[in-house]
Order: sequence, then structure tokens, then C-alpha cells
Amino acid sequence: MKTDIEIAQETKMLPITTVASQYGITEDDLELYGKYKAKISNELWQEIKDRPDGKLVLVTAINPTPAGEGKTTTSIGLAQAMTKCGKKAMLALREPSLGPCFGIKGGAAGGGYAQVVPMEDLNLHFTGDFHAITTANNLLAALLDNHIQQGNTLGIDPRQILWKRCLDMNDRVLRNIVVGLGAKADGFVREDHFVITVASEIMAILCLATDMKDLKERLGRIIVAYNFAGEPVTAKDLNAVGSMAALLKDAIKPNLVQTLEHTGALVHGGPFANIAHGCNSVMATRTALKLADVAITEAGFGADLGAEKFFDIKCRKAGIHPDAVVLVATVRALKYNGGVPKDQLSEENLEALKKGIVNLEKHIENIQKYHVPVVVTLNSFLTDTETEYEFIRNFCEERGCEFALSEVWAKGGDGGIELAEKVINTLEKKTSDFAPLYPDEMGISDKIETIAKEIYGAGSVSYSPAAKKAIAKITEMGFGDLPVCMAKTQYSLSDDQKKLGRPEGFDLTVRDAYVCAGAGFVVALTGSIMTMPGLPKKPAADNIDVDENGKIIGLF
Amino acid sequence: MKTDIEIAQETKMLPITTVASQYGITEDDLELYGKYKAKISNELWQEIKDRPDGKLVLVTAINPTPAGEGKTTTSIGLAQAMTKCGKKAMLALREPSLGPCFGIKGGAAGGGYAQVVPMEDLNLHFTGDFHAITTANNLLAALLDNHIQQGNTLGIDPRQILWKRCLDMNDRVLRNIVVGLGAKADGFVREDHFVITVASEIMAILCLATDMKDLKERLGRIIVAYNFAGEPVTAKDLNAVGSMAALLKDAIKPNLVQTLEHTGALVHGGPFANIAHGCNSVMATRTALKLADVAITEAGFGADLGAEKFFDIKCRKAGIHPDAVVLVATVRALKYNGGVPKDQLSEENLEALKKGIVNLEKHIENIQKYHVPVVVTLNSFLTDTETEYEFIRNFCEERGCEFALSEVWAKGGDGGIELAEKVINTLEKKTSDFAPLYPDEMGISDKIETIAKEIYGAGSVSYSPAAKKAIAKITEMGFGDLPVCMAKTQYSLSDDQKKLGRPEGFDLTVRDAYVCAGAGFVVALTGSIMTMPGLPKKPAADNIDVDENGKIIGLF
Repeated sequence: MKTDIEIAQETKMLPITTVASQYGITEDDLELYGKYKAKISNELWQEIKDRPDGKLVLVTAINPTPAGEGKTTTSIGLAQAMTKCGKKAMLALREPSLGPCFGIKGGAAGGGYAQVVPMEDLNLHFTGDFHAITTANNLLAALLDNHIQQGNTLGIDPRQILWKRCLDMNDRVLRNIVVGLGAKADGFVREDHFVITVASEIMAILCLATDMKDLKERLGRIIVAYNFAGEPVTAKDLNAVGSMAALLKDAIKPNLVQTLEHTGALVHGGPFANIAHGCNSVMATRTALKLADVAITEAGFGADLGAEKFFDIKCRKAGIHPDAVVLVATVRALKYNGGVPKDQLSEENLEALKKGIVNLEKHIENIQKYHVPVVVTLNSFLTDTETEYEFIRNFCEERGCEFALSEVWAKGGDGGIELAEKVINTLEKKTSDFAPLYPDEMGISDKIETIAKEIYGAGSVSYSPAAKKAIAKITEMGFGDLPVCMAKTQYSLSDDQKKLGRPEGFDLTVRDAYVCAGAGFVVALTGSIMTMPGLPKKPAADNIDVDENGKIIGLF
Repeated sequence: MKTDIEIAQETKMLPITTVASQYGITEDDLELYGKYKAKISNELWQEIKDRPDGKLVLVTAINPTPAGEGKTTTSIGLAQAMTKCGKKAMLALREPSLGPCFGIKGGAAGGGYAQVVPMEDLNLHFTGDFHAITTANNLLAALLDNHIQQGNTLGIDPRQILWKRCLDMNDRVLRNIVVGLGAKADGFVREDHFVITVASEIMAILCLATDMKDLKERLGRIIVAYNFAGEPVTAKDLNAVGSMAALLKDAIKPNLVQTLEHTGALVHGGPFANIAHGCNSVMATRTALKLADVAITEAGFGADLGAEKFFDIKCRKAGIHPDAVVLVATVRALKYNGGVPKDQLSEENLEALKKGIVNLEKHIENIQKYHVPVVVTLNSFLTDTETEYEFIRNFCEERGCEFALSEVWAKGGDGGIELAEKVINTLEKKTSDFAPLYPDEMGISDKIETIAKEIYGAGSVSYSPAAKKAIAKITEMGFGDLPVCMAKTQYSLSDDQKKLGRPEGFDLTVRDAYVCAGAGFVVALTGSIMTMPGLPKKPAADNIDVDENGKIIGLF
């Protein structure tokens, strides 16, 4: 069987100018990065921004399991299939992070015959967006420490510095460090931390900004520290906005690439889906909506985190109206939710399926609370049985959802025709009356409880003393009307990753909270969230190489 | 008077494909980064590599002073003037570093009417080469610490780790840090250091590598630490070569941009000129030699550091033959060398000029030791007088050097016609019998003494006990045949930055030494060298901004 990179490298890509021309984009509207990557120019956005929007399809999934769901693969395959069905479709996806690429996860650009290419470039530096974010993040950190070194006229309290440095690298020894050792000229000694670039607030800001003006306003609002009087010190106070924005001037522009079957894909931004909102940039989604009849986008992790944040943070704030949701599951993952161990998922097991399908059921109900029509799709595996498919199909149809099998991993667009037809049908026949789950003016604790009870199925919410104090302070500072960004395990609907299926009536514990004033959300932490991953014993880096002609091998 | 960025932004650039076509390069041979930047493809290099070389001109200078010499400006102006004289000229220059751009120095792409454009891009992320180097550097660091974390089968001694992390940022608090704090999963606690990216050995390697194969061999030879038995542990031992090379697959390709007058410029790589060799990449220089009749390149700092390393490291190792040297000075800098304070340099002062010109004299003599013809040029200032010019002209001609005034800063190529004619004349009429200063097989201490006495004018060399021990170990490890890379102050021919003019008979102190086995040189430290700059009280970042259309302002 061919590996993803082999399939990708065997594909004859079209010049990106040809891909662009399918959407009426001329070479003048593009900033080329080699032959197969381009950024969308500011000028093009100015030209198209008043056009009516196409339809928007969100692809999300049940809670992730070790069995794998294939959300990105399904998104890409669906776009390829839509194109085969004669629809002008375009993807809006997240950019992969370099860190995991060298760690456990490997590359992230779809799989099999549903990939975005050039996959090596996507997984390595791509067009440099993440490097620009890293640099802007670290310039802000350097300006902050330099301000303290040069007299600290803002009275920054070194014990209350919130801003962390970042690298797009899995590097555990940088999680907790001490900086400023040495002599007088080497700065003040203090504790510091590195996070991975995708966890930087600048990543979230870039992905929520609507244009350069909005980006600069958001950068200015970033709270980097508190002063000795307990008041927030912002990036604007440090006079850091202009130089950070200058570093981000190209990163803010969406990147155009293609699928294996030459459908256009805007791949742009990639914030964490726990401490941030986990969606590609607003600019990419809005551009896709202007250029295509159907824009297909994706949100991180399962629907409890990804879709909820897509709806309540991204759509709410950007005024984006989703028209349909594709909910991805696999027979294997549903059986896993029903208690079957990882090594026995290949056997037919209707009892386990019945037990585990409640996870899917809850996600269907959740999305229906947003009044958006749902299409469930199963990313098929060879070991699945017809009986299992029939059971799931009936289950979905009883709940008012369309259902389709997907074989896009093995067959590309041809394997997604049924799914594409169901989605097209839904877009044409069903109405989306999308509305966010809660109003802006609801208090922060009430927002948390609404999400916990309505979406997760919690019976109650407990707050640590630190969380209570933090929420009170955030409200007092005037950020009570921001949406909440829940940082919760992705593996369960609850805050306990071991509770599979559909846990109910549990108590959700909020450990702490903080405001991302630039991104525009309040993060509620329900557990300890890793913001700087480590490398495993045998890192993926071990297999990666490049030959003398510059061809990459061993990237999965 | 217009600022550099205003002049640059008012210039109508040609599409880079048009610039390339002047050198017979088609669009197929380029990898475009927007409309005005491109990388030279591997395929083009394969096509041209067996062509005969054009002529090579090195631009270097007297010791730098606060008065400013304008070496890069002269290089660019000379190339513009050569083009006006009907020569097919091409530049090979270093890429600017982001750190200084936000610190004291500001941008670095020439000045006035002798600039390389687009200057904003050059000074910000350009084509991402430095980010790729940063990432490769830090991947190696992460793999090293991960190796220790996962069992340390190589027996790496955490007290003898040589490899440092890096960022392309002026950030003093990262000079001396402690990493690995926290819990068991957060790694072993140890002291660590960040350097600025241009000080990474990977930068030097990229600039000395002749192709991908050579790059990988050099990466593999990097010594990252010693084990508990005192033996070197290399990047190859950590299995890091393939993944680092994959990260560098595009960074290794030279970047093509243009001057304000559309002469082609390959801007590629930029290692420090003290702990490294301070020249743009071998690949850029060799490419320029294949594409143009005259390739004009530059070396860091004054000729005692830059030209010496260009000759003894770069030319020696890459088999490059320089045909002429342009030695840049200013009347002001020569008077400064003669003891005139910085605020009185505008007054005519022949006595001071006579006293200070010995600095120029020594550099002329030094270059003549390499048997390469010299053209001296004065980067003119409004306050210079004709009498001062005449004195310097006579001084140079008595020493067998051509002499020309240069007004390229104010007039672009038109201000460099006299210089260009002198250089063309030199290339046509004078012979270069270039040979390095010392043979490979000379011992390390003898090499240091040869450079110190022949080039710097030292009477003797002293070694600290640490330096003696280090040189013995380096020799024992089999690296005795590498050239020496002197890390010395750039402000004086001696190792004491206050000794201006032409100090003689002094004792040079070698404090320590280490081998860069990947880059292929032995660094001899004669003082404490800052490898991570800090930001000043009012950083250049304060002035930098970007408007709503993405136009950069305040970058100098």
C-alpha cells in the first residue's frame, strides 16, 4: 500500500495559477510561493468582499479515539466529490504545525487519495505564516523584558507576566525555564515558559482578525502582564503593535493550494482547539465563501469543542452563517465508545455499537441546538460490516439526519459522491436557522454552565477558588461579554478523558480562567492543558530525509 | 531628504522574471516568492554549473567606525554602475537579520540610491531562509534533550553540551537560561543559552555548503556535546541529519532580487563575521559567477576579519578565485582613525587624515599579500574637501592601487561610473594570483600566529591555559587541518577596540578555541563575543508600522 507522501508525490499538480483561474482569480491577484502555492492579495479581497456568500459546510466529528476518525480526509474528499458533481467547491482548512510533524503525529494534510498538496511544503514551512507568528510573539516578549531592563516605567510586576515565548517545535525542556541569568546587562532573572506556536494568542488573533486594521486593534489589546497596581499592561502600552503587525503583513493573507484532484484549498492559520478556538482563519473562510458556491471548512477535535467554538466564537464574531454540518464518525470509533478495546475493533459487534452510538447521538443533538442541518458520514474501513452500516444509517435517519458512507481515503472524490449528493441535497432543501448557543450579555459563569450542561451533558459545574476569583476579575475588567473558550479534554464529552460514550449528570470542574483580550475570548480551564508537547522515544524526525534533488522522504 | 524606505518604495521594480531574463534565466528556472523575489532552482544550477566563471570582485573596507563606511551601499552602487557601463554584473550579498532590524541597526539592504529591493521583505522574513535555519537549529536541540530524557544511550554529558538554541531576535534575557524545570516529564534541568540565528553553526554551514549532499555531510559532523568519556557526539549520532536537511531544502537555494536600477542580486545567507566567516553563501557566489561577467560580493566588518576569512575560509574551501578587491573608506572614518572625535569629523583636517590613513595602508598591504589587485574607493560625504581627496588619491596610487570616488548613495549607478571604470580596467589589465595566506597543513597555533602577525600587525600571541588545552584537543581530534576563524573586535586591527589606526607589535591574546566541525573551521576567541544582542532603550521596533494596505513604514 502506498504511503500518503508517495500518493502525493505521484500526483501531477496543476500550476496554482490554473487552480486559481477555476475561481476567476488571475495571476495578478496572487502572490506566488513557487509554482504550487500562493497567497491571496489584499487587492483581490477588496474586489470580492461585497459579493454574496456561497454556502458554508462545517465538517466536525464525534470525540476522537485512538481508532481515528479522518475529519480532514473527509473534508478534502468531500470537496473533491463536490467538484466531480459539478459544484464550484473550495476548502478552508488549518495549517499543520511543524512540532507534531517531527514528533508523534507526522504530517497533517489529509490522507490516502484525499489530500492537500504539496504535502511536504504544507507540513514543513509552507508560506512562513507560523514563523511570522513565532517572530511576532517573541518580539513582544523581547520588548517586554527590555522594557523592564530599561527602567520599567510601566511598573510591570515580573511576578505577574502572562506573555510567554513560543517555538513551533515539540520541546519539553522549554516548558518551564528561568531567563535573565548572567550579569546586569543580561536582564532580570524570572521564571518563563515557552508554548508551541499554535498555542500563542497571536495565532488565535490572526485567525479571528477580519483585516489588517482589526488585526492591529486585537494585537494592541493583548494583556502581557499586570503592573504592581494590579492593572493590565497591554502590547499597545509596550508600543509593540506596529512592529508585530509588520511581521504579520503577509501571514494575514490566506494561502491557496490544491487537493489531489485540483479543487482549491485555502489553508490558513491553525490555533489550538482547547485553549483557543481551533479553526482556520476568518479571512480564509470568508474568501472561500466569496469565491465558491460551497465552502467546506473544519474545526478541531470533536464537535463538543470544535463545532461549539466554531459556532459560538468564530461564526458569532465574524458574522458567518453555516448552512450544514457534516459529522464524521467511524464504525470502529463508535465500538470503541461502546467499550471495545483497541485491538478488537475489527470484529463486528452490534451490542458495542449500540452502546457506543450514544456519543454520535449527543453530537447530533448538540448541532441541532444551533439549528443547522446535519449529515452524518462514516469514514469506511475494510473491516466494517453492512449490518453495522445499516444500524447506523437507521439511527441517523430516525434523528432527521442525512447519512452517507465515505470512501474518500481509498477512492478520492469518487468515494465521496454519495456524501456530496447528500450534502448538496441538504443545502438545497433544508434551511439553516443558525444562532449561537448563548447571548453575548450572559455572564461568564452562566456561559460556562450553558455549554457544560447543553453541550457536554454535565449536571453541575464547580469552580476552584482560583477560577472564581479569575472570573470575577475578568468581569470587573470589562470582558464579561466575551464568548467562552473551553479548555477541556477532547477524548470525552466530560472533563474526564476516560468517560466515553455519553456521560450525563457529571460535575464539571473549572480550575482556572483567563482572558485573551486580543483574540476576544475568555479561556476556562477544566484540566491541565499541555501547551508545549514533547518528543516521543522514537520521533517522526528519525524517518524524515531529503534526497540530493530536494525530494522529501519519510514524512507521514 | 528622503529616507531609504521612501526611495525604495518609490522605485518601480521590474517583475523578477524580467530581471532574471537579463541573465538568460527563464521563469521555469525560478521559484517565485511573490512578484519580486525568487529562488534559483536546483535544475538551473545543474544546467549552468559547468560554464566558465565570470570575474569576481570582493568589496571590503577599513575597520568600521561610528562614522560609517557604506560597504553594502558601495557594492550595490558598483553593480548598478557596472550595468550602466554595459557589463553584465550581478551581486552576491548577505541576508539581513531580523534581530538588529528591530534593535539599533535597522534594515540592511544598502542605502540612498544604491539599495536592493524590495527592502521591507529583505529586512523582514524575506524567503524564510533564516526561519528555516532557526527551526533546524532548534530541532537539533530538541532531539538532543529528548535523547537524554529518553534514556541517554549515547551517554551525553549534560555538563558538556555545546549546542545552543537560537532565535532571530535581539533578546538579552535568553543569553543564559535554565531549562527543564518542572516535573519528570519536563526533562532534565540544565543550563542553556540562546544565540541569534546568524550565530548558529547551521548558518555557517548553509553558507559554505556546495550542494545538498555537502550540506548533509556538514550537518552530520556538527559536534553537539561530549559524552561522559569525553568523546564528541555529533548530529549524525542523534539521527538528526535528514530532518534538519528537510527543513533546509529550500533555504539552500539562492534568492534573486534586484537593485533600484534592476541589476540582479543574489542575497543568500548571512553568518556572523566574528565567530563565523561573515560571507554570503558559496552557492550564491558561484551562481553569480556562472550567470554574470562580473560578480560583486562582500564580506563582513573590515578587511582584517571579512576579507581574510573570505580568502582563507570561503575561497580556499570553495575553490573560488577572486580577481579584484574594492576597499571602501571614507574621509571621515580615516580622520576618526587619526584621533578626531565623532562630532568634529566634518571639518577638513589633513593632519588627522595623515595620521589615520595608516589604517587604510595596512589593509591595502594585507590584501596585496593575497596577490589580488586593489581598488580603493571613498564613499563621499558633502563635508569632504578636494584637498582631502587628492591626498588620499596620491596615497593610494603610490601604493599601486587604483582610486575612485563614489557617490552612489546620492546618485545611484551614475555616482559609481568612475569606480566601475577603474574596476573594469583592473579586471582587464591586472592579474590576480590569489593564494590563501597559509597552507592547510600548518598547525592551528601557527595559523593563528600567521594571521595575527601578517594581517593584524601583532608582535606576539599569548594563549590562555583554556585556549592551549582546547587547541591541543582540537588537533588530537583530527581537526588540525581546518582553517582558523578569528573572533576579534571589528573596531581595531588589534584585539583592543580602542587601538585605532595601525597598531603594531602588540600582543594578541587567544582566550579560548573551539571547532565548528560542520562549518569546517576552528574558532579562536580573542575577547568576549556577544552572540545574542539586546535591544536598546528606544528600539527601532518603536518606529515600524504597517498601514491598512500592508505598506510598511518606519523601517530604516
